[in-house]
Amino acid sequence: MEAIAEKEAEVRESFARQGLMQTLGAAMISVATGRCVIEAPFSNSLGQQNGFFHGGVIGALADTAGGYAALSALPLGAEVLTLEYKVNFMRPAAGELLVAEATVLRTGRNVSVTRVDVHVVDAGGNRKLCAAMQQSVMSVTPSVVA
Amino acid sequence: MEAIAEKEAEVRESFARQGLMQTLGAAMISVATGRCVIEAPFSNSLGQQNGFFHGGVIGALADTAGGYAALSALPLGAEVLTLEYKVNFMRPAAGELLVAEATVLRTGRNVSVTRVDVHVVDAGGNRKLCAAMQQSVMSVTPSVVA
Amino acid sequence: MEAIAEKEAEVRESFARQGLMQTLGAAMISVATGRCVIEAPFSNSLGQQNGFFHGGVIGALADTAGGYAALSALPLGAEVLTLEYKVNFMRPAAGELLVAEATVLRTGRNVSVTRVDVHVVDAGGNRKLCAAMQQSVMSVTPSVVA
Amino acid sequence: MEAIAEKEAEVRESFARQGLMQTLGAAMISVATGRCVIEAPFSNSLGQQNGFFHGGVIGALADTAGGYAALSALPLGAEVLTLEYKVNFMRPAAGELLVAEATVLRTGRNVSVTRVDVHVVDAGGNRKLCAAMQQSVMSVTPSVVA
Repeated sequence: MEAIAEKEAEVRESFARQGLMQTLGAAMISVATGRCVIEAPFSNSLGQQNGFFHGGVIGALADTAGGYAALSALPLGAEVLTLEYKVNFMRPAAGELLVAEATVLRTGRNVSVTRVDVHVVDAGGNRKLCAAMQQSVMSVTPSVVA
Repeated sequence: MEAIAEKEAEVRESFARQGLMQTLGAAMISVATGRCVIEAPFSNSLGQQNGFFHGGVIGALADTAGGYAALSALPLGAEVLTLEYKVNFMRPAAGELLVAEATVLRTGRNVSVTRVDVHVVDAGGNRKLCAAMQQSVMSVTPSVVA
Repeated sequence: MEAIAEKEAEVRESFARQGLMQTLGAAMISVATGRCVIEAPFSNSLGQQNGFFHGGVIGALADTAGGYAALSALPLGAEVLTLEYKVNFMRPAAGELLVAEATVLRTGRNVSVTRVDVHVVDAGGNRKLCAAMQQSVMSVTPSVVA
Repeated sequence: MEAIAEKEAEVRESFARQGLMQTLGAAMISVATGRCVIEAPFSNSLGQQNGFFHGGVIGALADTAGGYAALSALPLGAEVLTLEYKVNFMRPAAGELLVAEATVLRTGRNVSVTRVDVHVVDAGGNRKLCAAMQQSVMSVTPSVVA
C-alpha cells in the first residue's frame, strides 16, 4: 500500500519535471500499476495547419503515458527510456480534449511493451478513438541515465 | 522552376499555420522535392525529466519534416495526413539543437512513405544520430480535410 | 445473415489461395466481422536457430489475421493490401502452437487499423502472449489489384 | 581479418540452422560488419492470394537480414533477439526474386537499430523497392537464450 503511494509520488514527481508536458498543458490524470492516463486541453498552440491537435502532441502524450505506465510496474528507483513507438492516426483529432490511456502488455527484465489508446473529446462530450500506439521502453538504473 | 517556388511557398505557408511548431520554436530550414529539414533549439520547455529533448519533440519534428517532404513531391493544392509513423530512439538527445531531415522513399497515388533522420548537435558542434523514423502519409484533397 | 456467411466464404476462399499459409501449415480458425484467428503448429521448418518459432512466422500469421479481420468488416468484393505493420516480440515463442488473434480498431473509408495478439501454447496447454502487432491496411477494388 | 572471417562463419552457421529460411528457399548472399543481404526466389509456396510474394515472406527476410547485420557488428559469441520491427509495403511484390539489404544504424550496448530495404526483381532484371523496414534487436549472451 505504502509502496504504491510511494511509486505514484515518484512517477508524478518525474512527470512534473518534464518541461514539454508543462508546455503542452498536460496533466497526469491517474497512475496505477501498469496503467497511466494523461490529458491535454486544446489550444491553438497545440494545433496543426487545420486547427486540429497536431500529431506531435498526440505522439508526445501517448509516449509519456506509456512510459509512466511501464515505470509504474517497476521497482522504486527505476527509470525508463523509450526505445521506440509506433502510432497510427485514425481520425483528425478535432476536439477540446486529448486523452491518452496506457496499459502495459508485458513487463520484461529489460524491456517493457505498452499499448496506448488516444481519444479526442469534443465540446459535446463525444469521445472518439483518434490514435493507437504500441511502444517499448528499456528500464535503466538512475546511474545510467545521469 | 516557378512551380517549385510556388510549391515551396505553399509548404512554408502551411508550416507557418502549425501552432505547435511555433510553440516548439521550430524552423523549416529547407524544403525541396521529396526533402525537408526542420530544426528546433533546446530550451527547458522542450525537455524531459533529465534535461534532454523530450521524445515528443523528436517525434513532432520528424513527423512534420516527413509530412512536408511528402507534400513537396505532390501537385500544388494537395494536402497530406499522417497515417502512422514509427520512431526508434538511439541515444539520449542531449544537446543544443535538434535537426530532422526527411526523405521520401516512395510517392504513391494515395500513400507516400518517408524516412527521417534526427540528429542532436551539442554546443561544440558535434552531431549525433539520436532517432530514426519511418512514416506513411495519405494524400487528400483540401475538401476532404476541411 | 446470408451476407455474413457469404463474406466468410469469400475470406476463406482468399486465405486458401495463399501459398505461404499452406507452406506454414496455417489454418484459419475463425472469422467474424472485424475479427479473425489464425493458428499454426510448430515444426522445425518454421523454426529459428534455437528451435523456437521464427519471428517471420509470427509476423506472417499476425499480418494475415489482421488483413482478414479488416476485410471481414468491408463490403463483399473488397480487397485489402497491407500498408504496414509493427510487431513487438515479448518472449521467445517456445511452444507447440502459435495463435494470432486480430481485432479491427477502426474501419476507415480507405484505411483500416487492426491490432493482433499472438500467443504461444506449450505442450501442457499453457498460453503466453509472445507478440503484439499494430497494422494498417488499405482497401482496394479488385481491378486495382489485378 | 581472421576475426571477420570467424564472425562470418558464425553468422552463416546460425543462418543455416533457421528452419524457416530453408522452408522459404532463402540464401544469405553476403554479410559484412553491419551489413547483410538475403534473397529468395519466387515460388507459389511463397505467394499471397494474387500470386505476389506474401508480405510475411518480405517481413521474414527483412527481419532476418536486419538481425544478422546487427549480429555481424557484435563480438564473437553474441546473439541477438528481435525486439520489434516495422515494415512499410510500397508496391505489390510482383517478380521473380526478393532481395533484403540490411544496414545497422546504431550498435548500442544492449540494443541495435537497423534499416532494411527490400527490392523485388522481375524476369527482365528490373529492380523496384517494394518494402522498407526499421528494426531493433537486443543483444544477449548465449546462456540467456539457451
